[in-house]
Amino acid sequence: MISPDFGFPNSGIKESPLIAKTLKGIKPLDQGMMAKARAHQDNLTKPRGSLGRLEELAIKICGIRGELHPKITGKRVIVFAGDHGVVEEGVSAYPKDVTAQMVLNFLSGGAGINAIAEIMGAEVEVVDVGVDFDFPDLTRLVAEKIRRGTFNLARGPAMEVEDALEALEVGIERANFARKKGIELIAGGDMGIGNTTSATALFCAYLGLPPLKVAGPGTGLLPEQVRRKARVIAKALRMNHAALSDPLETLAALGGFEIAGLAGLYLGAAKNRMVALVDGFIATAGALAAIKICPALSEHLIFSHLSDEPGHKLILEKMGVKPLLHLGMRLGEGTGACLAMALIESALACHNQMATFKSAGVSDRVK
Amino acid sequence: MISPDFGFPNSGIKESPLIAKTLKGIKPLDQGMMAKARAHQDNLTKPRGSLGRLEELAIKICGIRGELHPKITGKRVIVFAGDHGVVEEGVSAYPKDVTAQMVLNFLSGGAGINAIAEIMGAEVEVVDVGVDFDFPDLTRLVAEKIRRGTFNLARGPAMEVEDALEALEVGIERANFARKKGIELIAGGDMGIGNTTSATALFCAYLGLPPLKVAGPGTGLLPEQVRRKARVIAKALRMNHAALSDPLETLAALGGFEIAGLAGLYLGAAKNRMVALVDGFIATAGALAAIKICPALSEHLIFSHLSDEPGHKLILEKMGVKPLLHLGMRLGEGTGACLAMALIESALACHNQMATFKSAGVSDRVK
Repeated sequence: MISPDFGFPNSGIKESPLIAKTLKGIKPLDQGMMAKARAHQDNLTKPRGSLGRLEELAIKICGIRGELHPKITGKRVIVFAGDHGVVEEGVSAYPKDVTAQMVLNFLSGGAGINAIAEIMGAEVEVVDVGVDFDFPDLTRLVAEKIRRGTFNLARGPAMEVEDALEALEVGIERANFARKKGIELIAGGDMGIGNTTSATALFCAYLGLPPLKVAGPGTGLLPEQVRRKARVIAKALRMNHAALSDPLETLAALGGFEIAGLAGLYLGAAKNRMVALVDGFIATAGALAAIKICPALSEHLIFSHLSDEPGHKLILEKMGVKPLLHLGMRLGEGTGACLAMALIESALACHNQMATFKSAGVSDRVK
Repeated sequence: MISPDFGFPNSGIKESPLIAKTLKGIKPLDQGMMAKARAHQDNLTKPRGSLGRLEELAIKICGIRGELHPKITGKRVIVFAGDHGVVEEGVSAYPKDVTAQMVLNFLSGGAGINAIAEIMGAEVEVVDVGVDFDFPDLTRLVAEKIRRGTFNLARGPAMEVEDALEALEVGIERANFARKKGIELIAGGDMGIGNTTSATALFCAYLGLPPLKVAGPGTGLLPEQVRRKARVIAKALRMNHAALSDPLETLAALGGFEIAGLAGLYLGAAKNRMVALVDGFIATAGALAAIKICPALSEHLIFSHLSDEPGHKLILEKMGVKPLLHLGMRLGEGTGACLAMALIESALACHNQMATFKSAGVSDRVK
């Protein structure tokens, strides 16, 4: 299914043996196992199809894992943090310092993602992949800073292609490391003041959408500020026009370190046959970049929730995916993806533990 | 807020001191505490409103519990089971025996609700309130059988008013008992072959909707069978016309033992200031009956999910409630309500554990 060039130029990918190897390792879902899983679902003590999307999830996970009764024990949320040069254009309601402050908040357990992860029994890993702050030596922080934030994408490429490759590699390594630690279910999260601007620019470039249709309030812009943000994005698309025919160069030109980290994480997760939950607006940008780089990734990902950021609905429709949750959330950090872990585990528990009509002595439907 | 007659005739309620006392104990939500909770949410380290419905949930639970930092430890799903005389009209895709068979399946842990409850860390209690089967002495079954199923509602009242009152009392007692055992979060579930017919008849009577607009496939009827089911319901509404001006008599005429049990459970939960999650189509009928009997109950309930039974959407709109989940589920048993427990716990974890901008040293938005 994957051509050597992945159907896109992606020429730069060849520079990274880790990325090239990861892409080669991403296989289609195991359709035979999914057919078996579907047949198994139809024997369980419930009207056929009555668990709705929980049935779909269980079947898909059987396809990802290549097992009829996959079990999930280890769960981890991996939050990538990076700063954005474009904040100098006044595109965020919050000051840039908040990125580093929130990293410290994640590490001390005070953020939304910490609270939700505790309920879900998931670990939280925080990766500095490009924060504009010199953290002291913190044992719990994964220190993979590539640069202290991106360049201003409205004035040129946000990242060098080499830096984007490095961020992808960091994401892949986090997936590989998690796999070694027994993690089977992974959620990616983001922190980066200014990153809805970067994500929106990526959506416009990858999906051919006009900035005014996708740009939204992010952390809380007023309508006239949103229009300004859309103009900044339009300028970024013009400035970086030459890069936009190549998925990797597009990611470098318009993305962010945390977005590229997320893209790498999804690629690494798929290669390791892990179940990967995509969070909201920012994480979807990372997922889309990864899918553009490697179309075979597409069927592996599970989109957890519809963000309250208005453009997300159109984007998910364009991508042909239906998110699981719709709770008006727009926090990022992996919060929506982490919430959806409960659905994944419930889907698998039903799939693996329910009695069949025969085993329970329950009459099947009248023919 | 509650007039002595609850704004409706409900004359029969006076026959039951337990019910009368329960209704008197249902107080409005604590608005002062909700205002404090809202202010607290606005200080937490996230853009204001960015946790969407999780914020609403936390604030509402503060109002229910009358506490600024409510904690939930005990969780229980209470599944009421009962049979329906109307199955003799051929309104279900499954034979009536399945009600009793599924009760045994719940008790041996093989049903969907057992699997999901295990993931959520919730206990499952099963209450026989009207199953047409003589169960042996089973320690884990709450034996409160009132009658071996309802009468055929297409030929007259499904229940005597006294029997409906008794089923309401059973539900209230289950809530009271759970409260004594330290349960703070409750989900109601149902099992009863034929009960979408009963529930649909109740919706039509309480909301003034035509049967053809609400009737759906239930466990899996074909379109012509759905039309037949709608005709049965239309007949039931005609046959029981005299009862339909009184909410309690309506419940007796068209409901089921498990639906009345659920109605009682919600009333008892609200009186005990427990957080009560309403499941799908059947549970909503129980909730609606309880709200018609006691309008003050309305703001206490949390509607967990939109069922795949097509009429549910219109009904919830008419009731002015927005369900939390929309996963294409139509199993009943309390499965959707139990899934939503993860959202409740996550909402409270964020509310109770997140740092404030001040405590975490995070900069607030640019004014």
